[in-house]
Amino acid sequence: MQQTRLDIARIRAARQVIDPVFLDTPLYRCEALESSLGCAVSIKLETANPVRSFKGRGTEVVAGLLAEHGPRAVVCASAGNLGQALAWSGRGRGLDVTVVASRFATAAKLDRIRALGAGLELVDGDYELARERAAAIARSEGIRLVEDSLDIETCEGAATIGLELVGSATPFDAVLIALGGGALATGVGHVVKALTPGAEVICVQPLGAPAMTLSWRRRRVVTTEAADTIADGVAGRCPIPAVLNDLLLAADDAVLVREESIIAGMRMLLDHSGLVVEPSAALGIAAILEDRDRFAGRHVVTVVCGSNVDLDVYRRWVGAAPGDGL
Amino acid sequence: MQQTRLDIARIRAARQVIDPVFLDTPLYRCEALESSLGCAVSIKLETANPVRSFKGRGTEVVAGLLAEHGPRAVVCASAGNLGQALAWSGRGRGLDVTVVASRFATAAKLDRIRALGAGLELVDGDYELARERAAAIARSEGIRLVEDSLDIETCEGAATIGLELVGSATPFDAVLIALGGGALATGVGHVVKALTPGAEVICVQPLGAPAMTLSWRRRRVVTTEAADTIADGVAGRCPIPAVLNDLLLAADDAVLVREESIIAGMRMLLDHSGLVVEPSAALGIAAILEDRDRFAGRHVVTVVCGSNVDLDVYRRWVGAAPGDGL
Repeated sequence: MQQTRLDIARIRAARQVIDPVFLDTPLYRCEALESSLGCAVSIKLETANPVRSFKGRGTEVVAGLLAEHGPRAVVCASAGNLGQALAWSGRGRGLDVTVVASRFATAAKLDRIRALGAGLELVDGDYELARERAAAIARSEGIRLVEDSLDIETCEGAATIGLELVGSATPFDAVLIALGGGALATGVGHVVKALTPGAEVICVQPLGAPAMTLSWRRRRVVTTEAADTIADGVAGRCPIPAVLNDLLLAADDAVLVREESIIAGMRMLLDHSGLVVEPSAALGIAAILEDRDRFAGRHVVTVVCGSNVDLDVYRRWVGAAPGDGL
Repeated sequence: MQQTRLDIARIRAARQVIDPVFLDTPLYRCEALESSLGCAVSIKLETANPVRSFKGRGTEVVAGLLAEHGPRAVVCASAGNLGQALAWSGRGRGLDVTVVASRFATAAKLDRIRALGAGLELVDGDYELARERAAAIARSEGIRLVEDSLDIETCEGAATIGLELVGSATPFDAVLIALGGGALATGVGHVVKALTPGAEVICVQPLGAPAMTLSWRRRRVVTTEAADTIADGVAGRCPIPAVLNDLLLAADDAVLVREESIIAGMRMLLDHSGLVVEPSAALGIAAILEDRDRFAGRHVVTVVCGSNVDLDVYRRWVGAAPGDGL
């Protein structure tokens, strides 16, 4: 394997500093999904924790280091989940956390960031503008900037999911991972490729926000002018070169899925698994729905990475099925 | 402590024979619930597993014993969750499982019992009639009857939840447990009283199905003519004397809640926690809603014990809030 920024020993060490509430999450076969999907499906559930997403794994590593050595003030840009998680991890360690987000971000995510005691600054633009603003705040105030996916601790935290997958008793043939900035995909992908090389690592991104997938395919950074998807958690436009380099080694494939498939995936996870999930967490099911032949008869793990939704919007998404009473 | 049928050493041993997919379930503070409830609330989530309820813990113990020593054919009565769990545990061990249920049981539960390969017999009556029929089948066919809550293995399996609660780093002041046949309440209650005697064990039952609560209060078995509640998982009418005896020692209190409180609890768990739960799993939140003063400022754990719902019915329940778009 070529060199990535990720390292199994460091990932194992990261696991030691993460609050156990984020670790050893449920991993289970969901047979009720399988007749519709034509393959064996296991769910790795990252939503049953205080911030309802996997992001706490990474922010625990970041905040643990800062609390020991670093500045006490920190700023990050976020679509909403990283900000919640950093607010949670920072609060417990007496850090002063500022989150910059788009004013169009999911309201429930912004509400929780505020409720967790972080400062919240909204920008009149998308996630990439929030990234710029967070960097400007860090420069002008001399505080620490946490950059999701670029800061290796965010990738190492996410990668602990991979340790749990490869450590499970049941072998799997493929893992489907939501692809946004890349922390989750590079982290989990690295561990799976290193320790279970026979399993396929497939990243999934919306067609409406394809920058990292296009970059992976062309092996160079491709940015897009706009992102147009309901999957707010993965709606970046400007991939980070170092993360792309890692992804080139950690992923076997990167696929793009349509919005209607994401919605169908969310609806299936509600109907058959009893799970409320945010759009990014349904990308894996969407990928199966769009390419059943590829997965037929195989055992696929999908990482259900978040459940922070505005419930009124969610209800419109999952209620749109023909014949549905909603 | 007086003598119950439960024993900590046996419960620890039970833990060793349960498939890990049912163990070490998420336990986490849900702050989003807390402003509405006025107390600290932790969720013990028993729904993220292959049968979406806690019942697999008990059926793993039962089926493990049968696979080693007992007859290969087994029958149980069930409101739907025990049947699913026994079907799952039995399938993996080559047991021949028959489930008897009411034809009015939650359709999703019956569908899953069938899908798991168990035989399913429906009776034209309630859960108590299903119990009678299951006993008759066991007698006439000479096969093993599994009686929920009476068979000590079902209580010991449920009691492993208690081990996980008392083993957690965060102390709690009270635990709220759905009360039906009594396996969950006696199991968890016994462990908590034995190992964390300062914590209050509060059982919660619907006003419409109060038999065990009335029995606990009068310290003798009280049966009711009918059960009228949406909480199908706890809708028994005929408490089992041996289980009542255990409950008298394991519970500090047993409270009854109204149907509208159960629905409000389900809605809160959806709105603030992102959890789809069945009515029995919302009994704890209902109890807080009905007696906020009792819990004010305390740290309460509620066991979210199942999520098997008919989604169309569930949507009517949670969609009934004023101003709600459903």
